[in-house]
Amino acid sequence: MQASELQSRFERIRANKWFEAFVVSVIVISALLVGAKTYELPAGFGSVTLLLDWFISAFFLTEITIRFLGERRKRNFFKSFWNVFDTVIVIISLIPADDTELALIARLVRVFRVLRMISIIPELRILLVSLVKALPQLGYVMLLMFIIFYIYAAVGSTLFGDINPILWGDITISLLTLFRVMTFEDWTDVMYETMEVYSLSWVYYLTFIFFTAFAFLNMVIGIVVNVMERENEKAREEKEALLRAELEAEGHSEPTLQDVMAELTAIKAKLEKQ
Amino acid sequence: MQASELQSRFERIRANKWFEAFVVSVIVISALLVGAKTYELPAGFGSVTLLLDWFISAFFLTEITIRFLGERRKRNFFKSFWNVFDTVIVIISLIPADDTELALIARLVRVFRVLRMISIIPELRILLVSLVKALPQLGYVMLLMFIIFYIYAAVGSTLFGDINPILWGDITISLLTLFRVMTFEDWTDVMYETMEVYSLSWVYYLTFIFFTAFAFLNMVIGIVVNVMERENEKAREEKEALLRAELEAEGHSEPTLQDVMAELTAIKAKLEKQ
Amino acid sequence: MQASELQSRFERIRANKWFEAFVVSVIVISALLVGAKTYELPAGFGSVTLLLDWFISAFFLTEITIRFLGERRKRNFFKSFWNVFDTVIVIISLIPADDTELALIARLVRVFRVLRMISIIPELRILLVSLVKALPQLGYVMLLMFIIFYIYAAVGSTLFGDINPILWGDITISLLTLFRVMTFEDWTDVMYETMEVYSLSWVYYLTFIFFTAFAFLNMVIGIVVNVMERENEKAREEKEALLRAELEAEGHSEPTLQDVMAELTAIKAKLEKQ
Amino acid sequence: MQASELQSRFERIRANKWFEAFVVSVIVISALLVGAKTYELPAGFGSVTLLLDWFISAFFLTEITIRFLGERRKRNFFKSFWNVFDTVIVIISLIPADDTELALIARLVRVFRVLRMISIIPELRILLVSLVKALPQLGYVMLLMFIIFYIYAAVGSTLFGDINPILWGDITISLLTLFRVMTFEDWTDVMYETMEVYSLSWVYYLTFIFFTAFAFLNMVIGIVVNVMERENEKAREEKEALLRAELEAEGHSEPTLQDVMAELTAIKAKLEKQ
Repeated sequence: MQASELQSRFERIRANKWFEAFVVSVIVISALLVGAKTYELPAGFGSVTLLLDWFISAFFLTEITIRFLGERRKRNFFKSFWNVFDTVIVIISLIPADDTELALIARLVRVFRVLRMISIIPELRILLVSLVKALPQLGYVMLLMFIIFYIYAAVGSTLFGDINPILWGDITISLLTLFRVMTFEDWTDVMYETMEVYSLSWVYYLTFIFFTAFAFLNMVIGIVVNVMERENEKAREEKEALLRAELEAEGHSEPTLQDVMAELTAIKAKLEKQ
Repeated sequence: MQASELQSRFERIRANKWFEAFVVSVIVISALLVGAKTYELPAGFGSVTLLLDWFISAFFLTEITIRFLGERRKRNFFKSFWNVFDTVIVIISLIPADDTELALIARLVRVFRVLRMISIIPELRILLVSLVKALPQLGYVMLLMFIIFYIYAAVGSTLFGDINPILWGDITISLLTLFRVMTFEDWTDVMYETMEVYSLSWVYYLTFIFFTAFAFLNMVIGIVVNVMERENEKAREEKEALLRAELEAEGHSEPTLQDVMAELTAIKAKLEKQ
Repeated sequence: MQASELQSRFERIRANKWFEAFVVSVIVISALLVGAKTYELPAGFGSVTLLLDWFISAFFLTEITIRFLGERRKRNFFKSFWNVFDTVIVIISLIPADDTELALIARLVRVFRVLRMISIIPELRILLVSLVKALPQLGYVMLLMFIIFYIYAAVGSTLFGDINPILWGDITISLLTLFRVMTFEDWTDVMYETMEVYSLSWVYYLTFIFFTAFAFLNMVIGIVVNVMERENEKAREEKEALLRAELEAEGHSEPTLQDVMAELTAIKAKLEKQ
Repeated sequence: MQASELQSRFERIRANKWFEAFVVSVIVISALLVGAKTYELPAGFGSVTLLLDWFISAFFLTEITIRFLGERRKRNFFKSFWNVFDTVIVIISLIPADDTELALIARLVRVFRVLRMISIIPELRILLVSLVKALPQLGYVMLLMFIIFYIYAAVGSTLFGDINPILWGDITISLLTLFRVMTFEDWTDVMYETMEVYSLSWVYYLTFIFFTAFAFLNMVIGIVVNVMERENEKAREEKEALLRAELEAEGHSEPTLQDVMAELTAIKAKLEKQ
């Protein structure tokens, strides 16, 4: 009996607006704390940040526990991606970081607590899910783009490897250099250097820019068309649902051609009886 | 009686086409004056610009006063955003700037008189309002983008803070550096520097560019879809209004199925009477 | 009689496919000649290019004359923009360029003969006309953008004029520097320089980039929406024309509700007569 | 009889899922081998890569032969673009590369075996075909863009050829420099250099950027509109097919106005007979 009472209390806490607002504030504070630590702080603040850090860790642990206990069927709790996500972040950031060697890693892990902002605000969650959903549609265009990159990187490191090993040493470095060329970042410096040896190497860069730009453009257009279609589909369905609801509300008061035919048949029958 | 007469005279001035054109010309002159002051002018021009400046200030004050007096209900005057906007700009630019210390600020304030161009041309006003209205729709995407920026800036200043304090010293500077990376501005210089210490740090930059570019793309597509939908909605409404107007103009001359049914019922009644 | 005969002969020449193809080839040759002159040519080629140049000039003059004489009503010839365009280019490139002082200008003028390619190929002409037509729709967005540029340039040259007169000396140079910032071309170098004096000047650059990028985005979306609407309008009109043509072809064989009503009235009349 | 038996066996191999998966794996291995060769490999690996290379070459030759023999009508085999494409790549990569002079070319040719990935995965094939199909629609915009480039290059090499022959020496180099300006790559360095001689030369760069950006924008919009229209057309056709199928499934159970008219005529005839 008492367990069930506690259960419903936790459920109430979990659904409480103020509790949610408080969780958001703690996440914001933890984000600010992460930011503050990057500044040179006066000595006094050291213990304050340490205290705050412990408070945030304890609070997050409590919050997760409340949410877990507030769930009626414990198994469902871990079926939600966001619950697992939160639990992992909270548990990882509990790792003590007194050691100077682990200090850096511990600080980095605490940064990811800011990600809880996404799991706590529903709109951000929806946004992220829709972003992730848009990715696989682009799968083949990205594969095609990777093939283009790979071929150009192989050719690049074969031809230009001796000219500048820092840019074209092996295929991994060449891939990075090609990404740089794609962002137009000082790409002419890279080109002029190789043009001194192979004066026709501008063909290599220009075709690469053309291919990737063209593939990228198609990728973008692909997304736009996809999004548009989904929106149009949604709009059409809403319109049809509206029409159907209207028809039902009218209760078929508007006669159909079938009614007219039934009436005509009745008249004809009467005429024949006469 | 005399007050009401003055009132309607002011109203007439305010609505006058030539008066409006004159106001626009004075704003253009004030803009040119602001531009001219940035050049090294011969000594003689000093007093000319001072004179012009006083004339413009006086004219703007007069114009605002006329518009205020031309308003029937004085309270409504300050309900319009653009009236408040104009009044604030005019009053601020009245601050005397003889002092050498305030001279710079006074000159800067006079620059904002150019903004009155927006309040005086209705098309620009509509444009600005529609731009501002498009912003909140992007709210959550921008929040998501800020979270990405914040996490990367925290990681960046933690890892790279000692390599180059000018670029990664604290979280604010890191945010600026990341904005620079997003605009592809010499981002490889920033990357190569950190790759000397952490050879895998290219992962940091490439994922950051990927995330922000992807989020930005979604933002743009979001606006496009929104604008399109609004346009389609408008087009549909116009079409429906046109259809309704046509039907009304025809005066229901086209018989409906309901008319047919009524007629049939009458025939049946007659047959039954026989 | 003879004049009219010559007239129709000129008309036939003008409409001849081979003549047109020959004109295009001469334009291409004149383009190649312009390109060839930028190379260091061996001495022998000098007279060849001079000869070719004279031949092209003579040919273009003849061609324009034929087209002019081939026009039945001489007045209409100059009503076409493209005829005036061609005539001006041909006449200007007739100016002798023996003088060494005018040699440079004469060479530049000959470059513009390449523009005749646009006037001779109908598809390019249509393209250019549609590009030019798209411009005024953007008028107000461009005015708004110029106002943003002007205000920032005025503020920039007031604040940063003493830091780097080469970049911020007066309002014209500042406008150029701001255009550079908008294209993200080494904009951080410009920013870091001013941040040494005014450490908050990054606000100036970031707001500027934000405003212009946002206005530019709206401009692009504006064009896209406009083009889409025009296309949709065209598609709708075509569909309606098709429907109307179908209805007419069917010759009203499909009975309408009006026919049904007429029939019913006739039946009722008959019943009443009984 | 035996030949026909072999034939159908080859056909079965060709259509086998596992065979296809194995071909993809060999292509991936050949791609990795190409990548691996760009690294400094320990001496032992030399013979391994040589062996792998021979295995891949032999396998590809076998695979092509199987596909060729599996084709019933040998002539049709070379009618498919992708079969020709594969055969050419396989045959070229058979060229022995023991010679040190040909070694570089042989290595480059082996890179193109990665391209077989496109011919083996149907989705990539469709993607590439649709990309290639989008190109000719842009033909005239690209011609217009080339004319703009050519004229600016001719003017640029005429005016700036003496200032910096490396950037503006002849028309080919000028075209490359202009492409660089279009990608905003250090374009201000190019501009500031020429502005020292011709202080108004910023007009040249700004108009060029404006023209090309505008033409490029129109090109992009052109593709978007085209893709959209094709999608809309497809959606409309699907909808119509659905409607037609529905009507047929209903078997005209819904009476038409023509049925009503027929019934009415029958009634009238009966009334007249009375």
